[in-house]
Amino acid sequence: MRINWLSVSVLLFLLGTRPLALVHAQELTDPLIQIGSPGNLYSEILDEERKFWIHLPESYSASVDITYPVIYLLDGEQLLGGLAAIQQFYSFFRIPEMIVVGISNDTNRTRDLTPTVVASRHDSEVEASGGAPEFRAFLTKELIPHIDSTYSTSAHRVLIGHSFAGLFAIDTLVGQADLFTHYVALDPSLDWDDGKWLKQALEKLDSAQLAGHSLFLAISNEIIRFSDTLTFETVDSDSSRFSLGVRSAKKFVEVQEKLHNDLSFASKFYDQDIHGSIPLVGMRDGLVDIYDFWELKRPSLYNDPDTPTETILSLIRDQSQAREEGMGYPLPMELDLLEMLGQFYADVGQTTKAKGVLALASTYYPLVSSLHGTLVDLCAELKDETCAREHAIIADSLSGASTYQDKVDSVFGDSN
Amino acid sequence: MRINWLSVSVLLFLLGTRPLALVHAQELTDPLIQIGSPGNLYSEILDEERKFWIHLPESYSASVDITYPVIYLLDGEQLLGGLAAIQQFYSFFRIPEMIVVGISNDTNRTRDLTPTVVASRHDSEVEASGGAPEFRAFLTKELIPHIDSTYSTSAHRVLIGHSFAGLFAIDTLVGQADLFTHYVALDPSLDWDDGKWLKQALEKLDSAQLAGHSLFLAISNEIIRFSDTLTFETVDSDSSRFSLGVRSAKKFVEVQEKLHNDLSFASKFYDQDIHGSIPLVGMRDGLVDIYDFWELKRPSLYNDPDTPTETILSLIRDQSQAREEGMGYPLPMELDLLEMLGQFYADVGQTTKAKGVLALASTYYPLVSSLHGTLVDLCAELKDETCAREHAIIADSLSGASTYQDKVDSVFGDSN
Repeated sequence: MRINWLSVSVLLFLLGTRPLALVHAQELTDPLIQIGSPGNLYSEILDEERKFWIHLPESYSASVDITYPVIYLLDGEQLLGGLAAIQQFYSFFRIPEMIVVGISNDTNRTRDLTPTVVASRHDSEVEASGGAPEFRAFLTKELIPHIDSTYSTSAHRVLIGHSFAGLFAIDTLVGQADLFTHYVALDPSLDWDDGKWLKQALEKLDSAQLAGHSLFLAISNEIIRFSDTLTFETVDSDSSRFSLGVRSAKKFVEVQEKLHNDLSFASKFYDQDIHGSIPLVGMRDGLVDIYDFWELKRPSLYNDPDTPTETILSLIRDQSQAREEGMGYPLPMELDLLEMLGQFYADVGQTTKAKGVLALASTYYPLVSSLHGTLVDLCAELKDETCAREHAIIADSLSGASTYQDKVDSVFGDSN
Repeated sequence: MRINWLSVSVLLFLLGTRPLALVHAQELTDPLIQIGSPGNLYSEILDEERKFWIHLPESYSASVDITYPVIYLLDGEQLLGGLAAIQQFYSFFRIPEMIVVGISNDTNRTRDLTPTVVASRHDSEVEASGGAPEFRAFLTKELIPHIDSTYSTSAHRVLIGHSFAGLFAIDTLVGQADLFTHYVALDPSLDWDDGKWLKQALEKLDSAQLAGHSLFLAISNEIIRFSDTLTFETVDSDSSRFSLGVRSAKKFVEVQEKLHNDLSFASKFYDQDIHGSIPLVGMRDGLVDIYDFWELKRPSLYNDPDTPTETILSLIRDQSQAREEGMGYPLPMELDLLEMLGQFYADVGQTTKAKGVLALASTYYPLVSSLHGTLVDLCAELKDETCAREHAIIADSLSGASTYQDKVDSVFGDSN
């Protein structure tokens, strides 16, 4: 027998169907969806005003003591809509809630995102290039400190970049890996400077120590632009500069996969996508890859009444521990999820299991008065006076009342 | 030899990298992205006010005589952000520009989207159900006529629905197929009424004639909610109501694939997605499936100077014809794309090819004065006086000036 379908709503919740994470219109005449609050910062390093946009998670509240990981998204004006959509459909289920900082690269794009100075590229003159070190200094010394001082951020940071910005992302991994935890490079311009940059980057990667960092590399099918017959497998037979981009990406994959720098590395070739379309699928796959530890393991067990209490508690502990290891700081299973599970087990008469779940939850969230309050009721139902009194004292001390201790007295008799 | 890398920008264009299709902020303090202009309509049929949101294509202009296909998106408040992101990254490249009407289903959702009256579902009482015929009448007689009279729409329509709205989509295909051209059903609730609805629907599909219509069915991995061991392949061994949803979807696929109703049908099981996450990937795959004729065929040939003029013209004709067949009305290759190709060939000295492309373009877009103007210059360069005079007369008659005829006179001498 399986318990009733109330479980559906619990599991909808467990598995990530939650209200929209997008900013919604307040007025009837407003657009339905509004994404990205504008911000700006004067950069002393770049000697200019820099624009960015902030997209906060659904649950974000300045007054609550929770910190969020941060995605730094280059070319914010182009990619923020796509990333917000991915967050809407995958947050909770496959990825954590995150703050997004969409950085404008509408001005001085080539200057800021390219690692070395070149005179020309693809037969066109390049006006300004090689400013990546300065732009990275702007991120390191100005933008990231500004964001960290303004929002509830954790030190877990992801950098996402496409094209030149993907090149910048990998150049940052190579030269200043600790600036971000994870990197997503979408069709990066690894053919920069006719291959000279790549050669040096691969040498540096060889001697780097990148434990705790990951890189997801998405490669689009640019081959169809210059050849009607070549494929990803056979493109190396072409030696023209037209194929240098995809050959450089293949080379990067081939070399990195043999290195022992402890980088967690994954790459994917998108046969059906081109340079312009790859950001949406690439960002989704990159984030799902980074947070592969996030997904709830064996969700059906939560729904099966035959699952022993100890198994449920182990699942919750393992999930919380995997998240702590993955994020680099304690991040237990969500409070509202644990509360809903406890409520669900209580509703179907599995009081001991409910008590176990909420008692475990109270070790993760010791300051939440309502958890202890619910535990008072469950302990009372189980006729466990010691347990009821213990949680009543905590609940009342947290809320500054004597409600729960009075309640215990009325159930078990005055302890005095 | 391949011609110079100016071609990159042409092919970026050919292959779909264009400016953002999203509504952008006008003011510095505005959110970066704003999607969905609110609309509403009083429905006599439903006797209530109905909300919707319009998302227009980037190129949309009320003053230009172009019609656009329309996507009717149920649960607009949940799905419009995702669909807008898909349009941003795939319009031009894999799908045409389309108007989106996001329909609100925040109120009376079960009533409006379910095909028959049931008393309960999954042990919960169902308050109101079976209103799909009335809701479909609202679409047929009120909303679609309203949209068609307000915007430049073509008769090519797509219906997208998720969950109950996916059930509504398939119920519409079964009962009133001609209301939409194409259908995308995302994890539809095909287990409605404990399988009774499905049985009848499959019988009706057996005798239906659905040539010209398509259905894309996306099925999520809901199995992980109730079983730790079953897979999509083995789920039929479970006879519980928990698995009825996915078993119903499998049954639908199995039966429809054997029918001879001429429906263009595709389905996909998403192992890594659940009910809540499937809309983003499902909408992308569904639209790419519907518009598989849209993608530019053999794009590298446009970039290869050795490609004969006649081959280029054939490619353009074939592409335009495929789009006409796919859309159901003439929709030649984009004017700006043809102009850019012509300009590109002219720039690299392939004047005959440039002239051929633009002459073909002028048959698709006979009223565009600038096309004939450019042809005057190309014909003059080729010393083809007849051709130059012919296009000069048309260009001048369209623009109401004598600029081009004067120019031809100055090149070839006064014809008088």
